[in-house]
Amino acid sequence: KVKKVLIEQMASLVTEHMESYGTKFLKRCFPTKVEKLESNRLQVTWKNTDLGTEETDSFDTVMWAVGRAPDTETLNLETVGVKTNSETGKIVVDASEATSVPHIYAIGDITEGRPELTPTAIAAGKLLAQRLFGQSSELMDYDNVPTTVFTPLEYGCVGLSEEMAVRCYGSDNIEVYHAYYKPLEFTVAERDATQCYMKVVCLREREQRILGLHFIGPNAGEVIQGFALGIKCGATYPQLMKTIGIHPTCAEEITKLHITKRSGLDATVTGC
Amino acid sequence: KVKKVLIEQMASLVTEHMESYGTKFLKRCFPTKVEKLESNRLQVTWKNTDLGTEETDSFDTVMWAVGRAPDTETLNLETVGVKTNSETGKIVVDASEATSVPHIYAIGDITEGRPELTPTAIAAGKLLAQRLFGQSSELMDYDNVPTTVFTPLEYGCVGLSEEMAVRCYGSDNIEVYHAYYKPLEFTVAERDATQCYMKVVCLREREQRILGLHFIGPNAGEVIQGFALGIKCGATYPQLMKTIGIHPTCAEEITKLHITKRSGLDATVTGC
Repeated sequence: KVKKVLIEQMASLVTEHMESYGTKFLKRCFPTKVEKLESNRLQVTWKNTDLGTEETDSFDTVMWAVGRAPDTETLNLETVGVKTNSETGKIVVDASEATSVPHIYAIGDITEGRPELTPTAIAAGKLLAQRLFGQSSELMDYDNVPTTVFTPLEYGCVGLSEEMAVRCYGSDNIEVYHAYYKPLEFTVAERDATQCYMKVVCLREREQRILGLHFIGPNAGEVIQGFALGIKCGATYPQLMKTIGIHPTCAEEITKLHITKRSGLDATVTGC
Repeated sequence: KVKKVLIEQMASLVTEHMESYGTKFLKRCFPTKVEKLESNRLQVTWKNTDLGTEETDSFDTVMWAVGRAPDTETLNLETVGVKTNSETGKIVVDASEATSVPHIYAIGDITEGRPELTPTAIAAGKLLAQRLFGQSSELMDYDNVPTTVFTPLEYGCVGLSEEMAVRCYGSDNIEVYHAYYKPLEFTVAERDATQCYMKVVCLREREQRILGLHFIGPNAGEVIQGFALGIKCGATYPQLMKTIGIHPTCAEEITKLHITKRSGLDATVTGC
């Protein structure tokens, strides 16, 4: 539930873009069966939980993208006393990746509350090995892990979502700078760019430390990666403003963000 | 002369890539005339300064990309005593953008030793205005200005070149981490990636502050922009290594750089 509201504004922009290019979304619909028709097409039946009805349609191709489920049940963890979350089945760990049995560790997607991301699991594993063999006492930093969703219009982010920042600090204590921008190649191709959007979420107090950065547009992963280093180094909004932009790029628009959400002003970037 | 040696390794990789795709470079050749032939083709004559010979060939199209020259002569600056560099014709300024006449200022491409970049000139102009009207005493920071050359294989950088870092600190005091990497889309298209390369130039002392970052590959500007914020915030090599990579991107390879030039080890990134 929490995860779902985290990036609500950004998720809507991505799905609106896909809808404008012809993708039909059936929300809150759960497939109950798939049957092969004589025509070789696949007939899918689903429950529409909004309307409480059963619906059906036929398709050329059906692709399942149902995420991952932790296969902990078969591990027989209760025997040694390793606790799992009864709802998700994931293993409960502390900051040092120790389970409820101190000498048994777990890292990666199997652990409760951790991001399901390979690079994060690799980093956590390296640090765990270093701690186990006495080379370091450093813990994995799960804050400020950047990631990207490779939708047709990509979404990249690092740090807190606006919704989470409001929850942690209160809306009076955060400032959100945002912009709707137009990638140069969209101009050339006369493509609609109404969903290309970015926002930076800062603390409102004088130093204005950056809590989160969110970017929808082409090459979102390439754009976000470097800013993740900046945020790891404690970047503030004034430091972002003092960073010279590289023209013409989409990323440079991040260094020019100056319209606050609070102001209610039009956040559309005009001109070059 | 200094500028020319600054990015010698990176420039060679870019031209090698263009050569492998069919561009012919005539180096140290200076055009002396262009004549229209009866066939409407353009006949260009040039001096080959390496061989001391005159050469000629005909072309469909001739494009001049000769850079900018400061048009200061017509300004009659000597009358008021504003000094220019007699060789380049550019106006000599100090850190506050003041010319040799303290109440006359100059910013941008017209000024001696400044980068010829619009975003830099805009930033310098804003800061100058703020100082002139007493709102701030902050000077423009000309270090760590990121930029990108939009060649077919793009080159982006921020901070010192390796060559300049060696000159400033001595080669014993800098560490260069580098990699030849293969962008994912090159793999799909079976494109040659031998010129896709990145390096980070650090101080060698314990904290290993990052002095410069250099990247050749797709979307170099998008990749470099965020790292420029990081370097502005004083990023170190260990902080770079602790930044989680976004998979699969080219930018993530920067967060995984671990082969030093000094080691002489093969710097080719293998696997995913």
